[in-house]
Amino acid sequence: MENFSFVNPVKIIFGKGTIQQIKDEIPSDNKVLIIYGGGSIRKNGVYDQVMNALSGYEVHEFSGIEPNPHYETCMKVVDVIKEKGVDYLLAVGGGSVIDATKFIVAAAYFESGDPWDILSKGAEIKKALPFGTVLTLPATGSEMNDGSVISRIGIQEKLSFGSPLVYPKFSVLDPTTTYTLPPRQVGNGVVDTFVHITEQYLTHYDGDSMLQDKMFEGLLRTIVEEGPKALKTPTDYDVRANLMWASSWALNGWFGEGAPQDWATHMIGHELTAFYGLDHAQTLAIILPGVMRVMWRSKFKKIRSLGYEVFGIYKVDQASTVDETIKAVEEFFESMGVKTHLSDYGLGDEAIDKVCKRMEERQWKLGESGDITPDVIREILTLRK
Amino acid sequence: MENFSFVNPVKIIFGKGTIQQIKDEIPSDNKVLIIYGGGSIRKNGVYDQVMNALSGYEVHEFSGIEPNPHYETCMKVVDVIKEKGVDYLLAVGGGSVIDATKFIVAAAYFESGDPWDILSKGAEIKKALPFGTVLTLPATGSEMNDGSVISRIGIQEKLSFGSPLVYPKFSVLDPTTTYTLPPRQVGNGVVDTFVHITEQYLTHYDGDSMLQDKMFEGLLRTIVEEGPKALKTPTDYDVRANLMWASSWALNGWFGEGAPQDWATHMIGHELTAFYGLDHAQTLAIILPGVMRVMWRSKFKKIRSLGYEVFGIYKVDQASTVDETIKAVEEFFESMGVKTHLSDYGLGDEAIDKVCKRMEERQWKLGESGDITPDVIREILTLRK
Repeated sequence: MENFSFVNPVKIIFGKGTIQQIKDEIPSDNKVLIIYGGGSIRKNGVYDQVMNALSGYEVHEFSGIEPNPHYETCMKVVDVIKEKGVDYLLAVGGGSVIDATKFIVAAAYFESGDPWDILSKGAEIKKALPFGTVLTLPATGSEMNDGSVISRIGIQEKLSFGSPLVYPKFSVLDPTTTYTLPPRQVGNGVVDTFVHITEQYLTHYDGDSMLQDKMFEGLLRTIVEEGPKALKTPTDYDVRANLMWASSWALNGWFGEGAPQDWATHMIGHELTAFYGLDHAQTLAIILPGVMRVMWRSKFKKIRSLGYEVFGIYKVDQASTVDETIKAVEEFFESMGVKTHLSDYGLGDEAIDKVCKRMEERQWKLGESGDITPDVIREILTLRK
Repeated sequence: MENFSFVNPVKIIFGKGTIQQIKDEIPSDNKVLIIYGGGSIRKNGVYDQVMNALSGYEVHEFSGIEPNPHYETCMKVVDVIKEKGVDYLLAVGGGSVIDATKFIVAAAYFESGDPWDILSKGAEIKKALPFGTVLTLPATGSEMNDGSVISRIGIQEKLSFGSPLVYPKFSVLDPTTTYTLPPRQVGNGVVDTFVHITEQYLTHYDGDSMLQDKMFEGLLRTIVEEGPKALKTPTDYDVRANLMWASSWALNGWFGEGAPQDWATHMIGHELTAFYGLDHAQTLAIILPGVMRVMWRSKFKKIRSLGYEVFGIYKVDQASTVDETIKAVEEFFESMGVKTHLSDYGLGDEAIDKVCKRMEERQWKLGESGDITPDVIREILTLRK
């Protein structure tokens, strides 16, 4: 196991009917800005629950945060904060809304240059506004970590940042808010959760981090068993609860500590979203099986454990073990309604060239061992046509 | 899954050579009081590492915290704090030292009555001194939770308290500090960790908390595989790392949330320690198999999962499933050098009568369903003669 130093200070308020508890978390004299997306929270009752909970507060709101939230939109919210003298933000939605809110609270106080530097240059954040979240789409884990991914449309860039100052103060996870999610978002959320785990688990490591491995296998088994049930019986409370809680644990940082991490699938996938606007989870479902295939020799030990512990696959020879496990992963993604090849989204050689060209320009070396070079990325993408 | 609200703010500093990092956590102008036990840290180099890390600080020290730490000793430390004007405490040792420190930091500022009320009456704590820990004996999980158990020798009482104000600010977990532990403490630590998990896992629950179940099974598998290795090859770093990290996760609170908990084994065991001075883990190794046996009908679903997922036991009929799983648990405890019957410790009917008499006086109803009454406790203890 590798050395690490870690703390996760997010308070989790979990369960049915818990949105009302936000009033116990936000100081009563604070001016609150509620941030949300396209308005689904107005249809499913979450907006009303939030407004009821905040009766007595001075409340402002900003709607219209996009999927893959835009830098340009975030900067508009910063203007609102300054104009209204907002003290506390409340993100109501999924990972996009929460990621946007993280950037907004950091940008609002950023005075040492252009806030874009936070994303493009990793500029240090010294101060941020406090915020909480009401999660309505389990997927990204953003509700329980300090990372954020933001897109800048003008230049087709999708970049990330992180800072301990942008941990949510609290996150409300009410599984009933997910009952009305469209199947596409349910599937995307489960695939995203799955790949967050494999980015940390499916790695080459000469040491031994059994505890972390067992925890990740437990999370994977949970979502592989519960994911399809959520599509079949959308209002099964315990299914939704297990999936919602698993999505937070997949990326709250605790079990990623102490061993190497990969993240090649995400890095390549981000480019497909930046250029072609694919859903984040769609890009992951395309790329992960390719990474497993091309990198199978170095990742074999973990591919075998994934196959055995999560999908019940036991084969004597290496080739069948790898084949069957990759097939099981693809079938799981497809069973969640998420297609796994570039051609399913109308993409082919041109897209591969475009992504690889950017990778070459940047001379990226991805993966836990830094050996996923632009040439290897081309091999991975070509396999996923 | 049940509703919950939870946060665990402890910063973990994990790995080889990390004790030096305590200087980054304690304000440099603070007067620090180091609290430790019987002096083993002076032999294994931990004391020197701590003192080197704190060079430049005003440092005081108090040694002599007992196993099952005494209220009387804690109150002596409170006097030292007041006399020296101590700002920050550092517990260096295992659960006893850390539990003592938690009580001390709470008692030092307790002004609304006798500090014993914190334990005997659950009196509210309004303020506590900050403290960190350097863990040298993985077992209790105290380094990452807000609970504490204290004994009062004069009246043979062993009582617990908890408060969010007594979470450690940080805990240093360096697995190499455990290399020189005597086998008895290694075995006790692993048994204690095992039973912390089963108190939360091995319960009757009509709902479904699959995520928590899978996490606990992963922790159990880790310690069942790694525990015996620690006795055979005491300086295997990864084995020690997995065990140390597992002991924190067994009782840091995160996976106990959302489902019922038992704790009957601990409550009954505490009485054996209070009356006869048995090691805490010895009492657990005696009681748990008895609780499993007597309560098997209500706990059957989890006993079966424990057998299958952790010990690889698969039997068609219920009776064999229960028998084999209890046997596997007993054999695991014995393999860690911890005996599992009252007679192994020279105890018999007299001890059973004494414990049951107190249980009857207090009319305790233990277990996740409150159905472990004094009569049932007598049945459990009688089975463990």
